[in-house]
Amino acid sequence: MKKVNNIAVLTSGGDAPGMNAAIRAVVRTGIYHHLNVFGVMYGYKGMLTGEIFPMESKSVANIIQRGGTVLKTARCKEFYEADGRKKAYENLKKFGIDGLVVIGGDGSFKGAQKFSQEFDIPCIGLPGTIDKDIAGTDFTIGFDTAVNTAVEAIDKIRDTADAHDRLFIIEVMGRDAGYIGLHSGIATGAEHILIPERKTNIDDVIDDLQANERRQKMVNLIVVAEGDEFGGANEVARHVQERMPQLDTRVCILGHIQRGGSPTTMDRLLASRMGYAAVDALIGGTSNVMIGIVNNKIQYTPLDKAVKAKQKIDPEWFKIVKILAS
Amino acid sequence: MKKVNNIAVLTSGGDAPGMNAAIRAVVRTGIYHHLNVFGVMYGYKGMLTGEIFPMESKSVANIIQRGGTVLKTARCKEFYEADGRKKAYENLKKFGIDGLVVIGGDGSFKGAQKFSQEFDIPCIGLPGTIDKDIAGTDFTIGFDTAVNTAVEAIDKIRDTADAHDRLFIIEVMGRDAGYIGLHSGIATGAEHILIPERKTNIDDVIDDLQANERRQKMVNLIVVAEGDEFGGANEVARHVQERMPQLDTRVCILGHIQRGGSPTTMDRLLASRMGYAAVDALIGGTSNVMIGIVNNKIQYTPLDKAVKAKQKIDPEWFKIVKILAS
Amino acid sequence: MKKVNNIAVLTSGGDAPGMNAAIRAVVRTGIYHHLNVFGVMYGYKGMLTGEIFPMESKSVANIIQRGGTVLKTARCKEFYEADGRKKAYENLKKFGIDGLVVIGGDGSFKGAQKFSQEFDIPCIGLPGTIDKDIAGTDFTIGFDTAVNTAVEAIDKIRDTADAHDRLFIIEVMGRDAGYIGLHSGIATGAEHILIPERKTNIDDVIDDLQANERRQKMVNLIVVAEGDEFGGANEVARHVQERMPQLDTRVCILGHIQRGGSPTTMDRLLASRMGYAAVDALIGGTSNVMIGIVNNKIQYTPLDKAVKAKQKIDPEWFKIVKILAS
Amino acid sequence: MKKVNNIAVLTSGGDAPGMNAAIRAVVRTGIYHHLNVFGVMYGYKGMLTGEIFPMESKSVANIIQRGGTVLKTARCKEFYEADGRKKAYENLKKFGIDGLVVIGGDGSFKGAQKFSQEFDIPCIGLPGTIDKDIAGTDFTIGFDTAVNTAVEAIDKIRDTADAHDRLFIIEVMGRDAGYIGLHSGIATGAEHILIPERKTNIDDVIDDLQANERRQKMVNLIVVAEGDEFGGANEVARHVQERMPQLDTRVCILGHIQRGGSPTTMDRLLASRMGYAAVDALIGGTSNVMIGIVNNKIQYTPLDKAVKAKQKIDPEWFKIVKILAS
Repeated sequence: MKKVNNIAVLTSGGDAPGMNAAIRAVVRTGIYHHLNVFGVMYGYKGMLTGEIFPMESKSVANIIQRGGTVLKTARCKEFYEADGRKKAYENLKKFGIDGLVVIGGDGSFKGAQKFSQEFDIPCIGLPGTIDKDIAGTDFTIGFDTAVNTAVEAIDKIRDTADAHDRLFIIEVMGRDAGYIGLHSGIATGAEHILIPERKTNIDDVIDDLQANERRQKMVNLIVVAEGDEFGGANEVARHVQERMPQLDTRVCILGHIQRGGSPTTMDRLLASRMGYAAVDALIGGTSNVMIGIVNNKIQYTPLDKAVKAKQKIDPEWFKIVKILAS
Repeated sequence: MKKVNNIAVLTSGGDAPGMNAAIRAVVRTGIYHHLNVFGVMYGYKGMLTGEIFPMESKSVANIIQRGGTVLKTARCKEFYEADGRKKAYENLKKFGIDGLVVIGGDGSFKGAQKFSQEFDIPCIGLPGTIDKDIAGTDFTIGFDTAVNTAVEAIDKIRDTADAHDRLFIIEVMGRDAGYIGLHSGIATGAEHILIPERKTNIDDVIDDLQANERRQKMVNLIVVAEGDEFGGANEVARHVQERMPQLDTRVCILGHIQRGGSPTTMDRLLASRMGYAAVDALIGGTSNVMIGIVNNKIQYTPLDKAVKAKQKIDPEWFKIVKILAS
Repeated sequence: MKKVNNIAVLTSGGDAPGMNAAIRAVVRTGIYHHLNVFGVMYGYKGMLTGEIFPMESKSVANIIQRGGTVLKTARCKEFYEADGRKKAYENLKKFGIDGLVVIGGDGSFKGAQKFSQEFDIPCIGLPGTIDKDIAGTDFTIGFDTAVNTAVEAIDKIRDTADAHDRLFIIEVMGRDAGYIGLHSGIATGAEHILIPERKTNIDDVIDDLQANERRQKMVNLIVVAEGDEFGGANEVARHVQERMPQLDTRVCILGHIQRGGSPTTMDRLLASRMGYAAVDALIGGTSNVMIGIVNNKIQYTPLDKAVKAKQKIDPEWFKIVKILAS
Repeated sequence: MKKVNNIAVLTSGGDAPGMNAAIRAVVRTGIYHHLNVFGVMYGYKGMLTGEIFPMESKSVANIIQRGGTVLKTARCKEFYEADGRKKAYENLKKFGIDGLVVIGGDGSFKGAQKFSQEFDIPCIGLPGTIDKDIAGTDFTIGFDTAVNTAVEAIDKIRDTADAHDRLFIIEVMGRDAGYIGLHSGIATGAEHILIPERKTNIDDVIDDLQANERRQKMVNLIVVAEGDEFGGANEVARHVQERMPQLDTRVCILGHIQRGGSPTTMDRLLASRMGYAAVDALIGGTSNVMIGIVNNKIQYTPLDKAVKAKQKIDPEWFKIVKILAS
């Protein structure tokens, strides 16, 4: 087992609340174990451009509660080519870096996997994405915050829906995964939740709205994940308005507010625990795995298995949605 | 001076946070003065359909902190015709109602004005609108909450803008008035604020973005009021992308979250004070005025002067925006 | 198996955010299964005084997001005597109630257990307590909200601690359990966390504060659970000030804010799922169990085993605290 | 008129939300006018120890939304002695500083006043205190945030008060001024508000609680400013419990959470405008005044008149409190 001495940490892909807490945990756990810890700016791009700098305990003071990422993030096409990765490797070598922690989504893990196969730098991935759709972990850093942000926003919208007896069709994030939609929909008592994991039958939705209209239930919320196969909120609204033009129908697309904001307690704990475990893994000689939490225990998943996973959603939830919104 | 004995209260037009606090103040002040107080559901519509019910002190318990309006609100075209108003009058008379408090915007005041001219029911208006664009008052019920909601949302977006070095173009409410845009833009350090009260020179915006790009300032926020004469956020984005396709530009339309949520302290105080003053005015024999607050003093404005007012915005604010975002 | 036709629901013990979401789930699931559902006011006290009323779907509209409990809660000594329970039984019988859902803590479960042994009314318990210290479930309704409230408060305190280079000693709720303390302490980067599950060595705390002083680290947070065996925050502060009078030390006792407020997404989901499962259990002929969630699966625990449990806290967390706050 | 070239900014006294927004405004307005701007750490203490450093536009990026103060604050007895001020002056001179902006309370202004009398450095004061009790301004930086924080906390407490039919006695900040108490009490519908500006008649409070008890109104909130002449919340509770031992009475002392947190829109605007005006004043040759806002206009008050002012509170507010909480 090769001893690790100098590690680097970076954030990659879309930002997620809790990334700063994870960076903090990596840096301080590294220092505790007498490693030198380096920060890489702008994800893989900073590895190519050499934006790499030593971090101390103080570098991560007072960031556990901040949204975004102090190391910034960016896309980097060059890293997906051999020449780019070589340049990245050479830059890391200048600093003697012999271990890398990548906080990001499944796309970022693919890059890390490729990089560590070509060069002798072990990589550990931490699942940082609001979408909670990575195989090998029950939770991802940022999901709990994103869904709570969505819920707070929808609570506000319900005030207006209630005041006006309106139908609101609300689009939440989730291009491939419906977890934000499912959880925020249940938590706000939405009448319908449309997500990619489940085929949308728009006729059922219309039937139900019509039944509600007959019994004078005019306030209705439909939560739509952006990746629902029927289309986003605008598409659903277009369809509803065609069929029920008499309804006072409005669309809200929550958008990027779901990515930012101070992380919830759960995301801070998750990030802290995962960041700590990442350094532990590197020191212990483990490499090319993603740190996950399964049934409240740390679990390693090889980076090439830590792919975007359309987890099976328990059908009982849909029964609960139907019953509780009645 | 005719003695008032039975008053009614309703909310009309778009809902605004603090309307419930105003209803509570009207009800409890009325009861304190030994009046009977009635609630009218769905604004003027409830006057026509007779959805009128007696309210007690308990009817408004624990609502001061709630968004929306417990009396609901709706549009009502019939009320803008003579026959409709006659029907409304007859319904009020069934309950012996001899005074009316209307919480809403300038459109609602026009209706009240007309109604009280035709019939012998004095009306008092309370400015309830998030837009803060009514002549005769420094503040409207709901504005402070709406602008704080916008600011919290934009703060979250800035986390992401910062993480990615992005330009965000954010649309806030304000079809005719730019106050939400102006205040939220200053409070979040927006680089540009586009509002209806000021001609938008898009070329200046582009020049400035280009200057920022040259000095590596890539994080930029542009706040656009929906009523800006150049168009909303999407239109601005279309233009920016045409001229600066290299920028990572995103659009967020905050939408209806700005109408809901628990009112701020200021909106609760404003609503409480205005509701109290409304009953005071009715008892004192005043009628057909809107209650305003000017320089922290209650001020009456005749309902027909309480129109949508494009208040002059001090040009110094634009200088401050420019300097502080630099 | 006896068929259940009329069920009642009540909240008992200290209130916890999410209780309303649980009530809503019980009521609507009951109605879905064609049961009559009754609400009991003020916990067991309402069973004795007969404050029992039929609930409809509408009775629980728009409460999923509210803190507190619409059914109120109270202590009731009489119920812990045979005569009291007999009276309670007779009142339930007047309404034909043949099933009972009790949302509360372990004390409330003991009452339910006793009651169902004496009379033929099956009881189901739902763990509603902010302390997360009930055997047979990984989470309790209210914990996630309480800990997030504590974290938001401590975040604010850190702003001041940072501005002044101060030591803050912050007391959070938890008479018998340290989960709120542990989670909020980690999430806010507290330097020390004192909880009942772990012996507090105050000399170690002082040593550490002195070491921090030597290296000019003057901002320190100590989070203390009210039930820590050394004493609460005031006792800790007294000791620190005696030994280190030169420090600028302040005490904050967060107190009852931790019980209220709109429930988080997680608490709403947990409460919805558990309320649904409670009715399911009653219909299925199960009785005298508490509904818990273990490893994300519903699990039944006999009411007499659902006692206050000092769960073993993984010692690794204390290592993480020490490392990450360094 | 002497030209100003190099200015310094510091924060002094208790921290208040919005101080960072004010620092940002001073720095960027200074730079815009081609001044060199320096930051002084730890208030006057940093002037004595020479902790003075040049600030750029970037130094204040992304701080407008942060609580606390990036320049930190501290008490400094030495500055209130002639020798201390001399030393401070010499340190400023090393940097060529010829203008000073002091963000703080009336105590800090006295120091600035004295300093500028002895030495040729013009000083401008900005009122930064959560207490809103400075003569010469309608608002102080931090007040709006503090009062909203108190209101959010009391809203949560009301959830519990309501669930349990309890009396809560809540202490808010305000050693000399009752504005936080008055505004938060009205906004949360408190039954009684005890503040230093008004003699507390505890017998009236007891009478009223007894009257409420007779009519079964058991939920009561009493908001007490810490500086009320009768004593704080504990003293009030002691008295109530003596006279009405049957009540379920609880005390909450909100404490330091009221100082921290992200500033509200109003505090950010106020701070931005005042910071801008401070530099404007220095450039214009004005010195030794505090910048205030009166009736929405900038107003200068000589530093020695900008003292703690027990502003007269309109007695009508107390009538409103009594009526609306009924």
